[in-house]
Amino acid sequence: MTIEQGAPETHPLDSIFYPKSVAVLGVTPTPDTVPNDIFRNILTSGYTGVLYPVAPFKRSIYAVKAYRYVLDIPDEVDQAVIVYPGNVCHKAVEQCGEKGVKSIIMISAGFREVGPEGVKREAKVKELCDQYGIKLIGPNCLGVINTDPTSMLNASFARQMPDQGRIAFLSQSGALCTAVLDYALEKGIGFSKFVSFGNKAGVTDIDLMRYLHKDPQTDVILVYLEELRDGRGLVEAAREITRGPGAKPILLIKSGRTSQGADAAASHTGSLAGEDVICDAVLKEAGIIRVDTIDELFNSAIMMTYQPPPKGRKVAIVTNAGGPGVMATDAAVNMGLEIPRFGEETTKKLKSALPAAANIKNPVDVIGDARADRYSAAIEAVLDDENVDQALVILTPQSMTDIEAIADCVVEGHKKTEKPLACSFMGGRDVQAGIDILQAARIPHYILPEWACKALLDSSSFNEWTNAPEPPLEPLPTDAGTVRAIINSAPKGYMSEDQCLAVLDAYGFPVPNHKLCKTAAEAADFASKLNGPAVLRIVSPDIVHKFDVKGVALNIDGPDAMTKAWDDMMTHIAGVMPNATIIGAIVRPMIPQGIEVILGAKRDNVFGPTIMFGLGGLFVEIFKDVTFALAPVTAQRAASMVRGVKAYEILAGARGAAAADVAGIEECIRRLGQLVADHPRIIELDINPLLVGPADVGNTVADIRIRLS
Amino acid sequence: MTIEQGAPETHPLDSIFYPKSVAVLGVTPTPDTVPNDIFRNILTSGYTGVLYPVAPFKRSIYAVKAYRYVLDIPDEVDQAVIVYPGNVCHKAVEQCGEKGVKSIIMISAGFREVGPEGVKREAKVKELCDQYGIKLIGPNCLGVINTDPTSMLNASFARQMPDQGRIAFLSQSGALCTAVLDYALEKGIGFSKFVSFGNKAGVTDIDLMRYLHKDPQTDVILVYLEELRDGRGLVEAAREITRGPGAKPILLIKSGRTSQGADAAASHTGSLAGEDVICDAVLKEAGIIRVDTIDELFNSAIMMTYQPPPKGRKVAIVTNAGGPGVMATDAAVNMGLEIPRFGEETTKKLKSALPAAANIKNPVDVIGDARADRYSAAIEAVLDDENVDQALVILTPQSMTDIEAIADCVVEGHKKTEKPLACSFMGGRDVQAGIDILQAARIPHYILPEWACKALLDSSSFNEWTNAPEPPLEPLPTDAGTVRAIINSAPKGYMSEDQCLAVLDAYGFPVPNHKLCKTAAEAADFASKLNGPAVLRIVSPDIVHKFDVKGVALNIDGPDAMTKAWDDMMTHIAGVMPNATIIGAIVRPMIPQGIEVILGAKRDNVFGPTIMFGLGGLFVEIFKDVTFALAPVTAQRAASMVRGVKAYEILAGARGAAAADVAGIEECIRRLGQLVADHPRIIELDINPLLVGPADVGNTVADIRIRLS
Repeated sequence: MTIEQGAPETHPLDSIFYPKSVAVLGVTPTPDTVPNDIFRNILTSGYTGVLYPVAPFKRSIYAVKAYRYVLDIPDEVDQAVIVYPGNVCHKAVEQCGEKGVKSIIMISAGFREVGPEGVKREAKVKELCDQYGIKLIGPNCLGVINTDPTSMLNASFARQMPDQGRIAFLSQSGALCTAVLDYALEKGIGFSKFVSFGNKAGVTDIDLMRYLHKDPQTDVILVYLEELRDGRGLVEAAREITRGPGAKPILLIKSGRTSQGADAAASHTGSLAGEDVICDAVLKEAGIIRVDTIDELFNSAIMMTYQPPPKGRKVAIVTNAGGPGVMATDAAVNMGLEIPRFGEETTKKLKSALPAAANIKNPVDVIGDARADRYSAAIEAVLDDENVDQALVILTPQSMTDIEAIADCVVEGHKKTEKPLACSFMGGRDVQAGIDILQAARIPHYILPEWACKALLDSSSFNEWTNAPEPPLEPLPTDAGTVRAIINSAPKGYMSEDQCLAVLDAYGFPVPNHKLCKTAAEAADFASKLNGPAVLRIVSPDIVHKFDVKGVALNIDGPDAMTKAWDDMMTHIAGVMPNATIIGAIVRPMIPQGIEVILGAKRDNVFGPTIMFGLGGLFVEIFKDVTFALAPVTAQRAASMVRGVKAYEILAGARGAAAADVAGIEECIRRLGQLVADHPRIIELDINPLLVGPADVGNTVADIRIRLS
Repeated sequence: MTIEQGAPETHPLDSIFYPKSVAVLGVTPTPDTVPNDIFRNILTSGYTGVLYPVAPFKRSIYAVKAYRYVLDIPDEVDQAVIVYPGNVCHKAVEQCGEKGVKSIIMISAGFREVGPEGVKREAKVKELCDQYGIKLIGPNCLGVINTDPTSMLNASFARQMPDQGRIAFLSQSGALCTAVLDYALEKGIGFSKFVSFGNKAGVTDIDLMRYLHKDPQTDVILVYLEELRDGRGLVEAAREITRGPGAKPILLIKSGRTSQGADAAASHTGSLAGEDVICDAVLKEAGIIRVDTIDELFNSAIMMTYQPPPKGRKVAIVTNAGGPGVMATDAAVNMGLEIPRFGEETTKKLKSALPAAANIKNPVDVIGDARADRYSAAIEAVLDDENVDQALVILTPQSMTDIEAIADCVVEGHKKTEKPLACSFMGGRDVQAGIDILQAARIPHYILPEWACKALLDSSSFNEWTNAPEPPLEPLPTDAGTVRAIINSAPKGYMSEDQCLAVLDAYGFPVPNHKLCKTAAEAADFASKLNGPAVLRIVSPDIVHKFDVKGVALNIDGPDAMTKAWDDMMTHIAGVMPNATIIGAIVRPMIPQGIEVILGAKRDNVFGPTIMFGLGGLFVEIFKDVTFALAPVTAQRAASMVRGVKAYEILAGARGAAAADVAGIEECIRRLGQLVADHPRIIELDINPLLVGPADVGNTVADIRIRLS
């Protein structure tokens, strides 16, 4: 292995992809079995190192001298591929450790995916690997493939070695890998690295993504994931990978979107899917492009691998058939691409090159009887237009269409531009020769124009993301010490209202002026200092639903009324809940009307502290019109959370109303993000509602609930 | 042609598909031109009739004796295919008429799609065809193909004759046809009839759909449409075709969804797309399955052609790979299919047939090392389960997977059941032999499990539709005569409020008790008869915005207050609008609070009178949460309109509120449908809001606006 040929020289995971010697532990001579397939694959795929079979009681496997145990091998062994039954693997690992093996690819099943017994087994294996410093892939996986000519390792039971290419594929499902390899082979798609990581007991998907980020052989990282174990780690890694020098796109399928799908995922790899809607938001926040199908995954991957990034979203369409042109335009616009008008110069060029019946506006219709000359002129003209960032060429095979000549002219036109180009030669056999020409020139081809649009979109989105670094988090000043003291002294469960208000107060939220009073006199005194009528709210650890026990009194005007309200409340509660511990009651002013919004926070098992925002009441309940983000939240993300709900129009001043204090909401979101990030014992928090007034009045926290772990 | 072989014997459009003789007008001997291609296609595709070239100054074309004019042909000519330039076509039509030609397929372009001159030309051609009783396909089309062995007519310039099959395809875009033919050829999909209808000047898409409904060769009708000219005619036809004896599914692509797409469509066939959201609703109401891409079109078509209809939406999934199983489950559930639990018996069978590590719940995972025996047992078990209506079999090619044997066992399993089955053998080359076996047995195969799910869904939807005939329209009693008299006497534009109320009153809407008063005394007298406070609203043809001129007074309590309110209002208006003609003012009671809903009606150019329903205010403005239907509206459809909005929960009694008078809303929708259907001069009508009270209180029309043409 030499540096020039691309392997990152000293990465700790190199021992997985670039081992100098590999032993397969558990080989049998029986063909068409997993152990035999793996051994044969390494043997016959061009592996550049030395291969040893470990197969007790056999002299040789495929004429290669066999050993009883890995410890019997007289030379150094970098990597062990283990295919023993799950219940004996730990012994093999132990021997590997003694032997000084650097990486293990554990194909064997029978671990976490089979229940508690397997979980224990997996922990044991992991512990041993950690102890010996061994990098572990699997268990319960298909294996690892590295097409780098310096290694040419196919340590998998896949049916075939893929071509070399610049796409890396990581999959939690081993079975899917075989389908993907077969699919890719047919489409002429090559891979740099191909990893089935299975239960990810040792090396994780995140470790592998970070490795591929530095891998000079890889341009695009594709991931199929069933279980997100460390959501926050994924987000951190993805942000680093998708931005900055050497940034690479990550395209990801996360299955288990529906609860039934998640159940199925859980039953087969022991995964538990998080709430999909949060997952969706978080992946976006991490710059990961989430897709739904294998097709989408590769459609976008070849676009990003083969073509330069687009400057923007403006797509020119050139077609010889109006119908597909219209369908592509519909698809592009619906997805969020733009179909720009052409400049004058372009229009002139198109007019002179195309017949009168042609449509010289975007989408350009060169008409059914077009031959290569018309395509050539149109493609060149639109790619020259500065209003155009990328182009889609559509062809339907008419009787006079010179398909191969047109493919050639697409290739020629593409050479003269820095703008990305995609094609859709529609049909099947008739257009195949043309498609072959395009693919040889690395011009992405899609059977349907709609797919081309999706690939152009994903490429555009990635480009926008990678070129727009997010400003760093700027913490607002808060009094974290006070909150720490309050939380430290509070028991598990819901905090009392006075504690909640004190917490928010310390973090700078717009909490109403209030006081926890112990006596009627104290309450009357505080009420007299307020402008306008007051509210009285009981505080008791035993009372959750204050209204049910008349623990809330509204519109109390003046100290006398307060004294009476206090007495009435205490008398009533003493009657209905004689054993309740009464801490006192909070006195505060009536809160002015406003638009109800909800700010929520939740500590998620997968993602850690997350923040939710939405407009109150029916908007949340019926339309699920909410946005999510990880805490803490940058100013930019807070702004996009508020603007991301459909009901934002209401805040912005729909129906002639005054614009609401949006800046104030954004600040609350940031403060909330800091609060839950700073204090891990907060597992749930709801400000519901925050009453939002006009910009010159501001917002007020009207109700608050905090739950501690 | 004999009846047994399937051509509907006496249908007027038979002359298009089953002509006994065809003349091609405008043939040239130059190969690779449209006229030559068409002639050669008919000549070489096995046409069972007699073919004549009409080519001035040529003795023969491809050795077939040529004639100068159609009139020179000594025999009867059933059909003429015209490929002359657009500006001389009318002369050819005239000669065809004299000759007694029964159908014309006009390939020529240069008509409505090129602007006003072309529109005139097209009108002329149509007029001549009507005059001679000629059925006209086109102009501006690719032609017509009939694969029925009794005809074998390829009167098109497509590159190839498709295989015979039971799918009919109609397309407004000629160019798309060639792509579709090529696509279908590769997938082994055959056609019964294949028509490019172009500008549909004579025979329309609707005529063709009705013909195919009766065509014994056709099971499924596919349509690609850019322009809906007669939306109501399409709906009527589709309802007849998709329900009742001999019902057939219609799958339709209507392009021009976005305004940019519609612009492009307009520029290339002279179409104007209606509002897409209405179109969507209306197509659904007609039982038409709307899809977005060519793939979807054929994926669902082969499902419906090859497989029996499913009893319900419950899908069993059998897979050898967890990942794709999860993805298919996600897709199925998201689309609206169900993934049922299996019965005890099934669970028992699966448990005994599959290894311990298998997942015996739905989706069944027979695990990666499964061979045909496991698949066979699993498929048979799930198809036997009465909780299962249909099944999806997924395969990924593992090294030990015996793909062809598994395909065989799918075929065997399928023979034993009446339930539809789809497969997804994922990958490419490895699985091809298996796919071939499935396709030969007419088991639909899809590269992606997600596509299979969509096809199963469409087939399920159609089955539900076709088996649930809609109860007929039951008109409610109304006083149409009164309304006719009011409308007849009213000028174009907005009607006055008293007229509007009279119209609604005559149609039985819950209009508040009211009177148009001419004097203060009359108003005071009427107000004294009302329970509770009254409202006074100015009536003047010159005053549109009543509030701006203080033309509305609320909460008027008693006759004295009314007299004062009247005087104040009249004085003020006389001051600010001295020239306004005052008809009087309406006195009515204050309307009780309620939930605001909107009922709207609009006469659409394409669809005629349409009805809209939604909850008032932000729900409509921000969430576009509305439903549409054609007027008149059946009781069933009125109910589904109300239940179709997301905000229906609010009416049903969300948040513990009392349920609203939903039955009353439904009745209003039906009355509104009758009103606008009965009176074509109503081009716009808005009841905004209808205030909806609890069921025991009922609803009230709070404001109404009607515009006449």
